Amino acid sequence: MPRVHVRLSLAVLTGVATLAFTPTQSADDTLLGFTAESTRVQRDLEARFDAQLDADNLRDWMRQLSRHPTHVGSPGAKANAEWIAEQFRSWGFDTRIDEYQVLFPTPRERMVELVAPTRYMLRLAEPVLEADATSGVTQDRLPPYNAYSADGDVEAEVVYVNYGIPGDYEELERRGIDVRGKIVLARYGGSWRGIKPKVAADRGAIATLIYSDPRDDGYFQGDVYPDGPYRMEHGVQRGSVEDMPQYPGDPLTPGVGATADAERYTVEESPTIMKIPVLPISYGDAKPILEALEGPVAPASWRGALPLTYHLGPGPARVHMRVAFNWDLTPAYDVIAVLRGSEYPDQWVIRGNHFDGWVFGAGDPLSGMVALLEEARVVGELARSGWRPKRTIVYTAWDAEEPGLLGSTEWAEHHRDELQDKAVAYINTDGNGRGFLGVGGSHTLERFVNQIGPDVQDPQTGVSVRERLRARILVSDDSEAAARTDLPISPLGSGSDYTPFLQHLGIASLNIGYGGENGGGSYHSIFDSFDHYTRFGDPTFEYGVALAETAGRATLRLANADVIPLRFGNFADNVRTYLNEVEQLAETMRTETVRHNRLVDEGAFVLAADPTKTYVPPDRKEPVPYLNFAPLQNAITRLEGAAAQYDERLASTMGHWGQSGVDRDVADRLNDILQGMEQRMTRREGLPRRPWFRHMIYAPGFWTGYGVKTLPGVREGIEEREWEEVRLFVREIAAALDRVSDGLEEAVEVLG
Amino acid sequence: MPRVHVRLSLAVLTGVATLAFTPTQSADDTLLGFTAESTRVQRDLEARFDAQLDADNLRDWMRQLSRHPTHVGSPGAKANAEWIAEQFRSWGFDTRIDEYQVLFPTPRERMVELVAPTRYMLRLAEPVLEADATSGVTQDRLPPYNAYSADGDVEAEVVYVNYGIPGDYEELERRGIDVRGKIVLARYGGSWRGIKPKVAADRGAIATLIYSDPRDDGYFQGDVYPDGPYRMEHGVQRGSVEDMPQYPGDPLTPGVGATADAERYTVEESPTIMKIPVLPISYGDAKPILEALEGPVAPASWRGALPLTYHLGPGPARVHMRVAFNWDLTPAYDVIAVLRGSEYPDQWVIRGNHFDGWVFGAGDPLSGMVALLEEARVVGELARSGWRPKRTIVYTAWDAEEPGLLGSTEWAEHHRDELQDKAVAYINTDGNGRGFLGVGGSHTLERFVNQIGPDVQDPQTGVSVRERLRARILVSDDSEAAARTDLPISPLGSGSDYTPFLQHLGIASLNIGYGGENGGGSYHSIFDSFDHYTRFGDPTFEYGVALAETAGRATLRLANADVIPLRFGNFADNVRTYLNEVEQLAETMRTETVRHNRLVDEGAFVLAADPTKTYVPPDRKEPVPYLNFAPLQNAITRLEGAAAQYDERLASTMGHWGQSGVDRDVADRLNDILQGMEQRMTRREGLPRRPWFRHMIYAPGFWTGYGVKTLPGVREGIEEREWEEVRLFVREIAAALDRVSDGLEEAVEVLG
Repeated sequence: MPRVHVRLSLAVLTGVATLAFTPTQSADDTLLGFTAESTRVQRDLEARFDAQLDADNLRDWMRQLSRHPTHVGSPGAKANAEWIAEQFRSWGFDTRIDEYQVLFPTPRERMVELVAPTRYMLRLAEPVLEADATSGVTQDRLPPYNAYSADGDVEAEVVYVNYGIPGDYEELERRGIDVRGKIVLARYGGSWRGIKPKVAADRGAIATLIYSDPRDDGYFQGDVYPDGPYRMEHGVQRGSVEDMPQYPGDPLTPGVGATADAERYTVEESPTIMKIPVLPISYGDAKPILEALEGPVAPASWRGALPLTYHLGPGPARVHMRVAFNWDLTPAYDVIAVLRGSEYPDQWVIRGNHFDGWVFGAGDPLSGMVALLEEARVVGELARSGWRPKRTIVYTAWDAEEPGLLGSTEWAEHHRDELQDKAVAYINTDGNGRGFLGVGGSHTLERFVNQIGPDVQDPQTGVSVRERLRARILVSDDSEAAARTDLPISPLGSGSDYTPFLQHLGIASLNIGYGGENGGGSYHSIFDSFDHYTRFGDPTFEYGVALAETAGRATLRLANADVIPLRFGNFADNVRTYLNEVEQLAETMRTETVRHNRLVDEGAFVLAADPTKTYVPPDRKEPVPYLNFAPLQNAITRLEGAAAQYDERLASTMGHWGQSGVDRDVADRLNDILQGMEQRMTRREGLPRRPWFRHMIYAPGFWTGYGVKTLPGVREGIEEREWEEVRLFVREIAAALDRVSDGLEEAVEVLG
Repeated sequence: MPRVHVRLSLAVLTGVATLAFTPTQSADDTLLGFTAESTRVQRDLEARFDAQLDADNLRDWMRQLSRHPTHVGSPGAKANAEWIAEQFRSWGFDTRIDEYQVLFPTPRERMVELVAPTRYMLRLAEPVLEADATSGVTQDRLPPYNAYSADGDVEAEVVYVNYGIPGDYEELERRGIDVRGKIVLARYGGSWRGIKPKVAADRGAIATLIYSDPRDDGYFQGDVYPDGPYRMEHGVQRGSVEDMPQYPGDPLTPGVGATADAERYTVEESPTIMKIPVLPISYGDAKPILEALEGPVAPASWRGALPLTYHLGPGPARVHMRVAFNWDLTPAYDVIAVLRGSEYPDQWVIRGNHFDGWVFGAGDPLSGMVALLEEARVVGELARSGWRPKRTIVYTAWDAEEPGLLGSTEWAEHHRDELQDKAVAYINTDGNGRGFLGVGGSHTLERFVNQIGPDVQDPQTGVSVRERLRARILVSDDSEAAARTDLPISPLGSGSDYTPFLQHLGIASLNIGYGGENGGGSYHSIFDSFDHYTRFGDPTFEYGVALAETAGRATLRLANADVIPLRFGNFADNVRTYLNEVEQLAETMRTETVRHNRLVDEGAFVLAADPTKTYVPPDRKEPVPYLNFAPLQNAITRLEGAAAQYDERLASTMGHWGQSGVDRDVADRLNDILQGMEQRMTRREGLPRRPWFRHMIYAPGFWTGYGVKTLPGVREGIEEREWEEVRLFVREIAAALDRVSDGLEEAVEVLG
């Protein structure tokens, strides 16, 4: 799956993504969690680390790993897992492969035909291109499909539903269009893909086709492959449609590792498998269908870049669609490589990237995977030269991420107790590219991240990656972000392997990557190849090296810090912002509802509409009650106080230890408390209608997918007008924050 | 030329266009400028007026007038002028045709060929369509061209410049692209068309091609003709590129009527004729050129709806273009029909619409013209039945509007002294369509207009046109507009025949039309036909009748009012808003400049740019000084006081006269003062670099064209960083407003 920010525009990126920047800080400053002396030692280590990174390795390994299909269950994936394990072993890691048996449906039959008003048999296939060496490799290759679509054989009229998100169906209702019994045609974008069939099925549609409109992903963006990086006429985006916002991982074994003997749902019982057939298609295949649609013209913002007038239907375009899958259990191979810590062997810093792709997977995931491998190789070299991390470092290469974070989720579920007991942090990477540093993660790590950016040089400009990102934020005029002492890291939704660690287990997590200047368009297609990546991704692999420097620093600092490097002022500050947002959300919704109901009562919607067109005015909406946010306000105020006290006390203690040496007993007791701090933010019963998601601060949106919802119990309660849920989660989040404050007060006591 | 608002989106429309709405007002309220008794008489008259309007006449006359080409100088235009004059005469008007000799170039040669990297000879022609009866009428028809293009034979590489406005060239500069010696390809939209070659020539380009991108004007908007109303692949928008923001009318005779013996510039001397060749083309013809362009990909907002990646060039697309024109003087025929007033024969209410089109002109201008004719017919009937207007009514049918408001401008210039002495108001209409009332004009007439809307019924919904427009404003959430007592009328820029009256002579003016639900796409093409209009414009001509009811009321009320119905509180209120806007503009520009210079100094623009692409960082900008707006603030404060006093005193006097009868002596003295009030807002020396434009409150933008600039001397001074001009015009506008206040204080004295 993608690093999200590669596909974001500048404006969105600076809101969501992030960096490392303290205006007053120089590279000589003492690192958070380190004394002055241990900072010096750490920086020496990092200099040696940087010196040994070699871009040629990244290139060679990507070529090696992307020469065959790499999806879970493929011979190529198995070979890659074994090869990766072999490398780890050769670098001195204690390495094993953990195997799970996961449900991974593969297509047995795929047929889509436009049967009226004209006939057109869809290609459902990508062409061989001379300029792309692996595009001719067909052995073991999966054709375009959406994993966890239902089987089905249906024929019906088509309705164009734009991005297929809930708001789009409201627009259709205004025009008197009902999708019950219809096949909906949705375009990629606007939400994570799995939302589209989920909402469509919820509204009564019987199947979903998802296509890549050239406006979002094709010639509108830039020159298409192989002239440029963008999606060509017959490129198709594969991808999972598992209902991951409910729970990710193996659909048959929620909450437990999918070991051979695990208790399993049947396929029919699993709640995360789509209830209707879904298939992705190219814009070449979508065009005849869209051309054949009549009915109202689509709203302006729904229109893409195909040379036609976008109509909504229903019909006269009529599609016959037949899909059937092999519903087999498949082995997934997670590679686990351990370097035992010298002082805190039972405190684990986990560093991961997946290695399975949809086809060859050069950009996604191998561009991140090879950076992780190079990072591990050099860490192995450092260990060979006598150095040892204080904490245990666990390098992981996940299988089966693409169908729904299966490799990481099953492993995290399987090792739940040990992880909650031992894991200090999880550091994730995924695809990587040329451009700007982007970091998302736990805000207890925001300051920590802000100390890394100034130490990594941007390969193209020579300034630090922090300096370059800061320029971008300044130019894009996100003055609030630029004015903060620490530039913000974005809260995490979902879309890569941090989800089970952060949102299920409550382990502080980071997701790190570079991008923004590499062209998109190969995503989840056969053209995500070595040829494509080395022309348009990161041709020199310099940004792969920059990623190794960045994620390597994060790993090494977390592993070597005297005290786990969390700072709670940043956390409190971000939570305060989220609370302000949800209060504003309720307020805006209240005002909007009053206005809406007034317009309904006055008949203004009808009068403003064109009488020659079907128009169904909206109903009145339930008024928005005034809600009591005081418990959250109080909890955050307490948290701010406790955080300020802890951060200050820690700083003075570290200064003291810089003179007198670290007090191991105090450090041990502190580290014990800090290791479990993120878990205090979780709730055992989880979120409404999705108990698997336990984090009270961060979750992917139930109706949006990857996109994050902060304070999700409250925010989604407001959005869905579930006022009782809002009331409950105001208390639950306040309780979680109070637990964090308890921990901080305990820590302050330890600091004396 | 178009009524502007037909082509505006909803959001823009409600900001710009307008209506009639007083929340507390009922149709029985006393009319502004009338006593209770004279209001009753007036409403009786209007009831008789409405009863005689007949939609069938509009239909018959449109068919009659649009059966042949109607451009100035064509046999059809001459025949139409004579036929219109004949109608006026038959209805009892004292009718004449005023003839002027104007420069109207017509094409002698038009050739455009893409000569590299492939060859393509552009069609430059529109097809015959079976569904459109007149599309086969070729006799006397002008092919697509831009009037007042220079002659020329050039060959050069092409640069795509988006809308071709000044900001677009700044984007090109950032990418290191220079248009000197190039042919620029611009798309229609974003400004009035004449701005495009003007800016291109200013930047050193040697020719301009202007095409209609399907995103703005084609299949992206809706189904294309003849399936739907929108522009088809080979439809071309003709139009003038005279530098009208400098002065409109005959390019050879600025400021004086183009009589046979007028002193004339030579063609070479005229400053309003374009200095480079220009030609409009279809998107069918533009596509091969755009496909052949390479160089940087165009910014996202520059990309249209053609199925290709928009590149900027320059080249390798190379175009050879040859155009030559007949630079002939042509007679223009203005039809003038007078109904003499009984009490104030020397106070004129002028009502006009042009009758020349680019080809058949069914929508533009005949849909408005036939409504004016029906209005005049019934006014004639009323006169025949014994009624007489108090003031003289002058119906006018203008020739030669399309090439640059020539008919109206020459007439207004020719009759300058008499008009400034006698004209009370000018009421303009142009093309008309189905939908919502839109009114622009002098804000001294804002309350007056707000008393008309409630009295005209919307043909489709049965509520008043005010009620319907109010619903639209509410739904579009322009809460500020909806909250005012009087819904706003928009200030006038240019684009139709009100310009010489309002902005050159200082005559209070209105521009009235319906639209927003009729599909665009035939504008200035051969498909602006009877067939197109009766399918997609106003098939029943009900909105033509509504226009006659609206403009007819405006005419009859202005002609019959005891006191000229101006209200100055509305004027003061709007001017206050404009002052706030220009102060804010200076403030925003100051903040932006500080920020911009900081980014330049820090090198942030360079760091944020992709190093693999050419990027030329912008220069520092001159800081924005603090400007003294106090003279304007003081003048507006005085105006508000004087206006409040006058409006109040008038109301109480009218109430008194309702009992005792009108005091003719007082009324005469008042009317004398009021007749010249708008002229007090003008400045003899005009605006900077364009002395023809004299109004200090309203002008079309020098660099934007039709779009209005309120307080233009100050606003454009700020935009162009001409601080001395700002300082001068703060004083000049204040002086103009003081003259209005003087007049109001005089009027208050008269009222006693």
